[in-house]
Amino acid sequence: MIKYPNGKKGSYEKPKTSQSGRGMELEKEIGLTNAYYLDKDRAIIYKKPTPVTIVNVDYPRRSAAKITEAYFKVPSTTDYNGIYRGKYIDFEAKECASNTSFPLSSIHEHQVSHLKRVVSHGAIAFAIIRFTTLSITYYVEAKKLVSYIETTSKRSIPLSWFQENAYEIPYNYLKPVDYLNIVDQLYFEE
Amino acid sequence: MIKYPNGKKGSYEKPKTSQSGRGMELEKEIGLTNAYYLDKDRAIIYKKPTPVTIVNVDYPRRSAAKITEAYFKVPSTTDYNGIYRGKYIDFEAKECASNTSFPLSSIHEHQVSHLKRVVSHGAIAFAIIRFTTLSITYYVEAKKLVSYIETTSKRSIPLSWFQENAYEIPYNYLKPVDYLNIVDQLYFEE
Repeated sequence: MIKYPNGKKGSYEKPKTSQSGRGMELEKEIGLTNAYYLDKDRAIIYKKPTPVTIVNVDYPRRSAAKITEAYFKVPSTTDYNGIYRGKYIDFEAKECASNTSFPLSSIHEHQVSHLKRVVSHGAIAFAIIRFTTLSITYYVEAKKLVSYIETTSKRSIPLSWFQENAYEIPYNYLKPVDYLNIVDQLYFEE
Repeated sequence: MIKYPNGKKGSYEKPKTSQSGRGMELEKEIGLTNAYYLDKDRAIIYKKPTPVTIVNVDYPRRSAAKITEAYFKVPSTTDYNGIYRGKYIDFEAKECASNTSFPLSSIHEHQVSHLKRVVSHGAIAFAIIRFTTLSITYYVEAKKLVSYIETTSKRSIPLSWFQENAYEIPYNYLKPVDYLNIVDQLYFEE
């Protein structure tokens, strides 16, 4: 095994960036939820690491390799994927500060085409969107989201659309964002 | 869309690290293969970004956020996953300089337990192992690899084991590491 002498191994550190800082609460809660699912052997779902372009690395003697220059990259895919009940599952999660609409600028084009593509290959695909000021978290099926984005001329999705087309994910203490409960209803119940 | 004013957006830069540097040739060829599969809409498979812990980020005026301190993390999962013929697919890829055996130290414990777990959930899971000096690339089913690792007291797997238990992936110009050809034979042919 490769050793990490600085002890950074399993530690979690909140990235100190406005970009990564947005949506951290939701991200943290989804992380707890995924850890719960994993612990119960219900699903194996991970967040992908933040993509960075590494430009320079220092190797100080007797300590860990230190990245001294790197830049954030635009992700090619969604943030989360894995396997649930034998099926491929794929989703994106976003927080939204507005209490009237969700700005489409917060989802990258790459991510929309990725969602469309995985749906056509038979994936369980969706977005988790939280209106932070309203404390409401929605599960939106990817096919509905993609179809809305492809047909609208607007730059945001009104809250009313979510109320009509999405599913609210109620808060749960053990699994704060219990999205698999919705997946079960949509994909595995008759 | 978030803008990346330094133009680093889609650029690929080879990480200048001994850790990430190992296995770059195989990684590059798998990248080309995955891009080919994606282009033909045959499969949607990506390499996960290298996991790093970001400690410090600078925001120079009028230019991109620059990560000035970060460290490599031990990955929790394998490097590659996605969807193929409706199924979840998951694999790890490693190069090996020895021409007699593959050192088990190059696969993390986390990765072995991850492979075991996804197999139990019905994934297509395997490892791609290349003996660089011999120019032979093997497809090893995860269940065989995990079972070997769990029962052996050795610290490496001899080449002869691969010759008996693994499948050679022949080189292909368009898709240099055409592993789906083996997947088809193992999972989709009668």
